[in-house]
Amino acid sequence: MNERLQKLYIFMVQFNLDAVIITLPKHVYYLTGFSSEPHERFLGLILPRGEEPFLLVPALDIEAAKAESTVSRVYTHTDTENPYEVLKRCLRSEVRRLGVEKKHLTMQRYEMLSETLEAEQFVDVEAPLTNMRAIKSADEIARLKNAARLVEQVLHDGLKHVKAGVTEMDIAAELEYAMKKAGVSPAFSTTVLAGEKSALPHGATGNRLIKRGDMLLIDMGVAADGYLSDITRTFAVGDVDDKLTEIYETVLEANLRGIASVCPGAVLAEVDLAARQCIASRGYGAFFTHRVGHGLGIEVHEYPSVHGDNRDLLREGMIITIEPGIYLPGIGGVRIEDDVLVTSTGAETLTTFPKQLTVIS
Amino acid sequence: MNERLQKLYIFMVQFNLDAVIITLPKHVYYLTGFSSEPHERFLGLILPRGEEPFLLVPALDIEAAKAESTVSRVYTHTDTENPYEVLKRCLRSEVRRLGVEKKHLTMQRYEMLSETLEAEQFVDVEAPLTNMRAIKSADEIARLKNAARLVEQVLHDGLKHVKAGVTEMDIAAELEYAMKKAGVSPAFSTTVLAGEKSALPHGATGNRLIKRGDMLLIDMGVAADGYLSDITRTFAVGDVDDKLTEIYETVLEANLRGIASVCPGAVLAEVDLAARQCIASRGYGAFFTHRVGHGLGIEVHEYPSVHGDNRDLLREGMIITIEPGIYLPGIGGVRIEDDVLVTSTGAETLTTFPKQLTVIS
Repeated sequence: MNERLQKLYIFMVQFNLDAVIITLPKHVYYLTGFSSEPHERFLGLILPRGEEPFLLVPALDIEAAKAESTVSRVYTHTDTENPYEVLKRCLRSEVRRLGVEKKHLTMQRYEMLSETLEAEQFVDVEAPLTNMRAIKSADEIARLKNAARLVEQVLHDGLKHVKAGVTEMDIAAELEYAMKKAGVSPAFSTTVLAGEKSALPHGATGNRLIKRGDMLLIDMGVAADGYLSDITRTFAVGDVDDKLTEIYETVLEANLRGIASVCPGAVLAEVDLAARQCIASRGYGAFFTHRVGHGLGIEVHEYPSVHGDNRDLLREGMIITIEPGIYLPGIGGVRIEDDVLVTSTGAETLTTFPKQLTVIS
Repeated sequence: MNERLQKLYIFMVQFNLDAVIITLPKHVYYLTGFSSEPHERFLGLILPRGEEPFLLVPALDIEAAKAESTVSRVYTHTDTENPYEVLKRCLRSEVRRLGVEKKHLTMQRYEMLSETLEAEQFVDVEAPLTNMRAIKSADEIARLKNAARLVEQVLHDGLKHVKAGVTEMDIAAELEYAMKKAGVSPAFSTTVLAGEKSALPHGATGNRLIKRGDMLLIDMGVAADGYLSDITRTFAVGDVDDKLTEIYETVLEANLRGIASVCPGAVLAEVDLAARQCIASRGYGAFFTHRVGHGLGIEVHEYPSVHGDNRDLLREGMIITIEPGIYLPGIGGVRIEDDVLVTSTGAETLTTFPKQLTVIS
């Protein structure tokens, strides 16, 4: 049994659980190597106390599960079976205290597990999973570096397609095409926002035409071997207003200060503050409406959250994004985002794409 | 207030709820027109009894929410605030009985709502939402037809790129590129599976090279104006084994029989059976490991599920997929999927892409 599963078994004993059930597909992947998107079907990795773990997968996934999973006990349920009844039959002992992922398990599934298994107490297994996932192994770091390298190559090549008259969606199409030709997938829907739309921190790529004088914000990432990258760069299309240049320089300085504050033992709130104060001191505090960053790994947003109320400490092996921004409604916005590894002595920035303001003409 | 929100208010009164809280982003879109992916941040549409509904959105989404939502009361929370505390301050009355989406609400959110609002009873609002969503309006049908038309154009053009020596991912890249150039997004990750991989009903597009003699299964859809299409076609690359031709013809007949059984009042289990019996009668029953189809609309899998235990009835205005398949492990698979509208007298197939076995050489 691999070390990750062993840690969950230790947690099970410590908290006197009868079983742990994992249903988040990314956690099933993390713990077994089996990558799957079951949609509304039931997919579970079950760790019964004192027994080998097993997978319960939709019947149509049996071949993939057997091929990919390091857990060799695999049971199935069909579309006409109640998966909770099947699960009950697979269990040899009663389950009264059950470990579950409270951030993922829905009330409907909770009620089904309560009723079918007659489980009485539900304990969150978030803590051991978060602790494991937060500290990346050498293998995971290598995959994250590879994902960063790949997204930068795609971004570099994709910029050739930027010119006045094409749409945001045209550029996103070129970028995601290049990802797939490189054999990887988008980590999330590629965001390309031009002009006043770049002032929407969560704006959607659309059919707006790019024109001279626009800021062009590109937020993208790739998934490679299960691990993600996440980078944002903002470009000027031709000459832009001095105000936009000013906010660019401010965001860049905030990005650099944020990265400079990253080291093992640093309080996350202070990393947030390092970047935020730089923006606030120039009078743009009200236009920086989100946290400075987030953990990155098998999910695009994972622990730890880099925000002003998080008193947790950075530890060696964590990977976080540093992505300050300034968004001026109706005018334009700038965000500069890097993926940063906490090393034994400080930080290593995995994304190396140039950050000086680039004018595309 | 729009008719959809009105129906939820009526449900609230009928079930004596103090408020309803909607957090599934697709439901927020369906009820307000505001389309958003908040990731782990809190996004809620709240209907307090006797008051106008309001949105509580992450601060960074305020501009988009105001621009898109028909609900004009919009409150925000920042990344350092507890959104449940903000929610409590937005409510003018106590909430003891709360309507929630049990299929979506996580245990963590349930516990936060219990603690912060001191809500005591949670009632599922699944029924009114499912009933509304199941029956598509003329406007929704027009959008679904448009999504079907667009995906077929993309598939038609994309087939030009299929030839021996390219990878599954190369073809997926061309297809998704064409989607974006047409101004739409993939409804889900485009699936291209060649040869023995086509026997994995949930296989992942990868770097397998396409070669002569392969079956090539393509499952794809687009999202256009919030509504989705979902089509599968299977092609022969050069001459294929007689066995593969035989299963193709069997699946095609099952697809046609399934569609022929669709009419208002038909029992869903019998639609499943119509397709399934055709496959079983040729001895392939064990190789058809999934239900015949699913509802389609703002989500790729929605109510109703077309499976052998579903005694619900089809009603005019529903849209379902009919997608039988046969999967021979290690050899290859075939699936043929159409999107089918239940009309007043029978069925209208929205996907019109040819279904006779096409040999790409």
